[in-house]
Amino acid sequence: MATKLEDIVSLCKRRGFIFPGSDVYGGFAGTWDYGPLGVALKKKIMNEWWKFWVEDRDDMFGVDAAIIMNPKTWVASGHAATFADPLVECLECKGRFRADKLADGINESVTTEEFHNLHAKCPTCGKENWGPIRKFNMMFQTHVGPIVDDTSVAYLRPETAQGIFTNYKNVVDSIYPSIPFGLAQQGKAFRNEISPRDFVFRSREFEQMEIEYFVHPDTWEENFEKLLKSVHEFLEEKMEIPAEKIHELEVAPEDRAHYSKRTIDVEFDYPIGREELMGIAYRTDFDLGNIQRESGKSMEYRDKMTGETFVPHVIEPSFGVERLLMAVLASSYTEEEKDGKTRVLLKLPETLAPFRFCVSPLLKNKPELVEKAKEVYDALRAKYGNVTWDDSGNIGKRYMKQDEIGTPKCVVVDFDTLEDGTVTVRDRDMTEQTRVKIEEL
Amino acid sequence: MATKLEDIVSLCKRRGFIFPGSDVYGGFAGTWDYGPLGVALKKKIMNEWWKFWVEDRDDMFGVDAAIIMNPKTWVASGHAATFADPLVECLECKGRFRADKLADGINESVTTEEFHNLHAKCPTCGKENWGPIRKFNMMFQTHVGPIVDDTSVAYLRPETAQGIFTNYKNVVDSIYPSIPFGLAQQGKAFRNEISPRDFVFRSREFEQMEIEYFVHPDTWEENFEKLLKSVHEFLEEKMEIPAEKIHELEVAPEDRAHYSKRTIDVEFDYPIGREELMGIAYRTDFDLGNIQRESGKSMEYRDKMTGETFVPHVIEPSFGVERLLMAVLASSYTEEEKDGKTRVLLKLPETLAPFRFCVSPLLKNKPELVEKAKEVYDALRAKYGNVTWDDSGNIGKRYMKQDEIGTPKCVVVDFDTLEDGTVTVRDRDMTEQTRVKIEEL
Repeated sequence: MATKLEDIVSLCKRRGFIFPGSDVYGGFAGTWDYGPLGVALKKKIMNEWWKFWVEDRDDMFGVDAAIIMNPKTWVASGHAATFADPLVECLECKGRFRADKLADGINESVTTEEFHNLHAKCPTCGKENWGPIRKFNMMFQTHVGPIVDDTSVAYLRPETAQGIFTNYKNVVDSIYPSIPFGLAQQGKAFRNEISPRDFVFRSREFEQMEIEYFVHPDTWEENFEKLLKSVHEFLEEKMEIPAEKIHELEVAPEDRAHYSKRTIDVEFDYPIGREELMGIAYRTDFDLGNIQRESGKSMEYRDKMTGETFVPHVIEPSFGVERLLMAVLASSYTEEEKDGKTRVLLKLPETLAPFRFCVSPLLKNKPELVEKAKEVYDALRAKYGNVTWDDSGNIGKRYMKQDEIGTPKCVVVDFDTLEDGTVTVRDRDMTEQTRVKIEEL
Repeated sequence: MATKLEDIVSLCKRRGFIFPGSDVYGGFAGTWDYGPLGVALKKKIMNEWWKFWVEDRDDMFGVDAAIIMNPKTWVASGHAATFADPLVECLECKGRFRADKLADGINESVTTEEFHNLHAKCPTCGKENWGPIRKFNMMFQTHVGPIVDDTSVAYLRPETAQGIFTNYKNVVDSIYPSIPFGLAQQGKAFRNEISPRDFVFRSREFEQMEIEYFVHPDTWEENFEKLLKSVHEFLEEKMEIPAEKIHELEVAPEDRAHYSKRTIDVEFDYPIGREELMGIAYRTDFDLGNIQRESGKSMEYRDKMTGETFVPHVIEPSFGVERLLMAVLASSYTEEEKDGKTRVLLKLPETLAPFRFCVSPLLKNKPELVEKAKEVYDALRAKYGNVTWDDSGNIGKRYMKQDEIGTPKCVVVDFDTLEDGTVTVRDRDMTEQTRVKIEEL
C-alpha cells in the first residue's frame, strides 16, 4: 500500500517531529516548526551532508553568508528582474493565484492571452473573470536602517548560492585553494510562494545545502560526472534512500535556466508523485561574470601550477534540507499488518534515527528495576550519546512509540537482568527479541 | 599589551574566518560572512553548546521554529508595541541616530526634552539642531503572500525565544516531558540596529542559542542557581574562557525588563570593554501567560506525579553565537615577541580549533617526502577528521599561518621519517619541537 502524505504529516505532529509554524496562533501559511525529534533528525541529515561533502574531502570548504545581502547581489544574479511567478487576480472575488497552477499544459512564461484562452475557473468562487497576468517577484522585501524608502530596500536571500559566489574572491585571497575546489553552504532561504503546499516540500522558508564547484572550463564535463556520482553515493549510501526510487531527469535545453548548459534534476518518488529532490547544474561562468561586471572586480583565478589565468566555471549540486528529509521519511515510513493490527514504523538508518537505543525498566514501580535500568541507560549514553529513556505505559505502548520515532533497538531491564546481567533487546524492523549480556550492547 | 579589536578583525579577514558581509559589493552595514575557518569555528562552538545543554542532559529538548512567525507572536510578546529604540534626526544634515548613544548618562527611555537639554552635537555635521525623539521599532518588516497591505505584514524574528514559547504546547502534547525541563533553540535573529558596530558584537543579523527552562513557580530560585552554575561550567570548561575575564552583573530592579524578577548579565572583558556575553533571566509566567491570552489556549502543565496543574514559570539562559565567538577569539588571541619579531597565535582549545593537526612535507619538491606525508595525513584524517595539509612556502611561513588559525600541532615529514618512522611535532603554544613515532600521534 502506497504511503500517503497525510500519514507522514500526522506522525510528524503526533510524535514531535514537525508542527505547523506558529500552530498555537492557528498557523502561518508556508512555515513549519521542528519539534525535538525533528530537530534531531534534521541535524543528523545536515551533519552527515557536511561530513560527506566538506569534512571528508580535501577540495571542499565551508562558507556561511548573511541572509540579508547587499541588493546589488540580486541585480547581478538576475533575481531582481526575473525571479517572478505569473500572478493572476480573479476580478469577481479578488483572490490571487499562480496562473500556471490553474490549468494544465502551461508554464511560468504563460501570457495573459494564452491564459484567458484556457477558460480556467477561479478555485475560490468558481467564476471565470480574470485580470491580466502580472509578474510577482518571489523575493521577500524589507527595509534596512532607519529610513523607509527606495534606497533602503533589501531582500531575504531566495537561495544560498549567491552567498557563495559573493565570497569566492575573499576565500581565494585568504586560503588559496587549488582548482578544482568547491565552496559549500547550509542555511535558510526564503521565497514568497503564492501557494505553498505539500507539507515541507514547498514552503516559504526553507533550508538549503548548496555547493558551487569551481573548475577550469575545459574540465566541466568530467567534474560534472564525478559530482553526480557522489550525489548518488550520498543519497543511496549515507541517506539509505532506495536507488529504485531515485531518477535522473536530463533537463531539456528549452527547459533549463538560461545560464545552464547542462542540468540534471534528481527526482524521488514522493507520496505526492515523482518530484525534484535535488539538482545539479553546470552554470558556466555566468555568476562570476555577473559579479565581475557589477562589482568591477576581477574574478579571475591564477593556476598555481600552469600560471594560466581564467574565470572559473561552476558546477552546482543543490539540495533542499526539507526535500531530503521528506525523502528520508517517505523511504522509512512503513505500515505492517500484524495480528489484525497496523504497526507503523520508521525504518530510519541507525546514523539518522533521533535515538539509537531506548532503555526502560519492565515495570516502573519496582525501584530495583528502575535503578538497574538507569545504570544501563547511563552506560549506553556515555558510549553512544543519543539514547532515550522510556518508562511510560506498558511495554507494548513503548515499543509502538519507539517504532514510530524510528529507534532501532529497545533495551528492557527485567528481573532476569538482576540475576544474570542480561537484558531483552528488541529490534525495530524484525520485532524479534533476544537476550544479550549488558557488556555486549 | 591589551588586544585591540582591529587586530582580531584583521586576522579574521586575512585568514578566512570572517569577512564583511557582501564585501565584493562594498559591504552591507551590520552583516558579516563567515569564511572556511570561521564556519569551522562557529560550527564547533554551536555543536559544543548543543552537546552540553541538550544532548548530554536528560531534561533538555531541541526545537527549531521558522524565522517568519505569525505576527500575533509579536503582539503577545510586546515586541510590536515596545521593541523600539529612541531615534532622533539632525534637522541640519538629515542624519538619523540613536539618541541614547549621543550622550552619556541617558538610556533608551530618554524623552525629547531630556535629550535637547543635553545639547549633544551631531556626529556628522557638528551642529545642534535636533528634531523630536521618535520610537523606531527594531523588527525588520516584510509582506507575506501576493498582497502588499496591512493585512500581510510580518516580521523577521528579533529573538529565538518566542519560537520556543509558541512550540511549548505542541512539545508537551507530543513528548510529555517531566517538569522541570528546558527547550533549546539555535538560529538566526534580526534587529534593524540604527548603528551596528564593534565587529560581530552588534550586527543586524546574528545567531542566538537560547533555552527556556520550565519550572514549578516555587522552585525558580534553586533552578536559577543550577543553570547559572552550568553557564560558568560551559564558558570556563567547554569554551576555556578564563574565569577572571568573566563577571556577573546582578541587574538592578529598575534596569531589568519589566517581566523579569531576576536577571544576571554575564559579562566578558572584550577588547571594546566589559560587555554582555550572555544573560540569564527569570521571566516568571509572563510569556506563557501572554500566549494563553492571545491564543485562547491553555498553557497549563499537569504534573504527572502530584496531579497539580499550573502555568510553568521560566528561566532563560540566552547566548549570542557571535558574542561567544568573539570572547573565544579574544581569549585566545596572543601576540608574543620573539627574536625581535611578533608572533601572532590563537590559543584555541583543541576542541574548537578549526584543525587539530597540520601535516606537511619538509620539502615540496621531494616526491618521497610528499608521498610519506600524504600517508600520515590520511591516517590522521581517518582518526581525527579535522586535519589540514600545507605544503606552501617554507616551514617558517607554514608555522606562522597555522599559529594564526590556531592549529595546536604541526606534523612535519622529513628525510629522517623515511629512515626511522618518526616525525617532527611542533607545538603551537610552546613552539617546541619533538620527534614522535608516527604510530604515537
